[in-house]
Amino acid sequence: MASTILKRTSCSAMKSMAGGLRIGATPFRAFAAKVEAGTDIVAAAPDVSLQKARSWDDGVASKFSTTPLKDIFRDRRVVIFGLPGAYTGVCSQQHVPSYKNNIDKFRDEKVDSVICVAVNDPYVLNAWAEKLEAKDAIEFYGDFDGSFHKSLGLEKDLSAALLGPRSHRWSAFVVDGKVKVLNVEENPSDFKVSSAEHILKQI
Amino acid sequence: MASTILKRTSCSAMKSMAGGLRIGATPFRAFAAKVEAGTDIVAAAPDVSLQKARSWDDGVASKFSTTPLKDIFRDRRVVIFGLPGAYTGVCSQQHVPSYKNNIDKFRDEKVDSVICVAVNDPYVLNAWAEKLEAKDAIEFYGDFDGSFHKSLGLEKDLSAALLGPRSHRWSAFVVDGKVKVLNVEENPSDFKVSSAEHILKQI
Repeated sequence: MASTILKRTSCSAMKSMAGGLRIGATPFRAFAAKVEAGTDIVAAAPDVSLQKARSWDDGVASKFSTTPLKDIFRDRRVVIFGLPGAYTGVCSQQHVPSYKNNIDKFRDEKVDSVICVAVNDPYVLNAWAEKLEAKDAIEFYGDFDGSFHKSLGLEKDLSAALLGPRSHRWSAFVVDGKVKVLNVEENPSDFKVSSAEHILKQI
Repeated sequence: MASTILKRTSCSAMKSMAGGLRIGATPFRAFAAKVEAGTDIVAAAPDVSLQKARSWDDGVASKFSTTPLKDIFRDRRVVIFGLPGAYTGVCSQQHVPSYKNNIDKFRDEKVDSVICVAVNDPYVLNAWAEKLEAKDAIEFYGDFDGSFHKSLGLEKDLSAALLGPRSHRWSAFVVDGKVKVLNVEENPSDFKVSSAEHILKQI
């Protein structure tokens, strides 16, 4: 019960912190996003790479390597979801478990990778993924400078929640780099169209 | 032994990622920093506030409140140290324990607050502080948009380490807002002049 109240408080606060701004977004029809069904996500974000979540020591050992988008998306069936940030509480903690708990269903659908991406550095994201015990099921990638989300038009200023430039909450099904389905929540506090359960019906 | 190697690797990698740029900095003589001994830190960063580290739920409950610098520094003896970021591994994990392990000595010197500040959001910083079991000894504040460090000239681009705009590694002793001592490491990977042991000799 207390948990329910907390969820509601948390979500409504994030909604009100968004200053009442509600941007319409439905599956297959992204509002201001540059990406939509049919977009080649690799071509839409040229020269952009993501950073595989890892410990600082692994980052050092890898010489701070990054992963080009083509290595993530080419010749693969990928489900990817984005969220405002690691450690942002109840709303985002629903998001990762939703995908973690449905991982076998994605595998049944021959999805090669289920990916979580956030505007965080890869070390913070790694610590959070470990805390959520989700690293075995989901691949986590940082977008530390937000360039991936900016390229797709999915960036969002969340300074009012003390987060700075982050992203919308969203999900997509991407085959060989082509976006087949895109879901963007109206507000980052919402957790409806970006859930695992929702996208599983769209694959 | 392995741990020693790791420390060396980690530090030298952060040094090399700084591109060989070495900027001279000694106590009482900050290189390009706008702040120096004698500076009123509150006046130097007008309209800047920090964000007390807390869980997302506590952030929501506080309506994402922030803390003005005057509430942190006025009429108080404060030791403050800054570092490149939460979860950045061995180098920064030495930094927080250094202050945590010496907290009684700071209290003996009538220091009212020992503060850790970093260009991170307050929720990430809170999770990291809890992991380090340092919250009882040290107050943690986020500078999520880097405005505090920019005002003091202590910002540093650490994109090469996949971190983005962060800060130098530094420490200061501040009495009633006035900087009495400022120590800035030549490179963020260094851990010499910004240690608790070093500043304890300067108070």
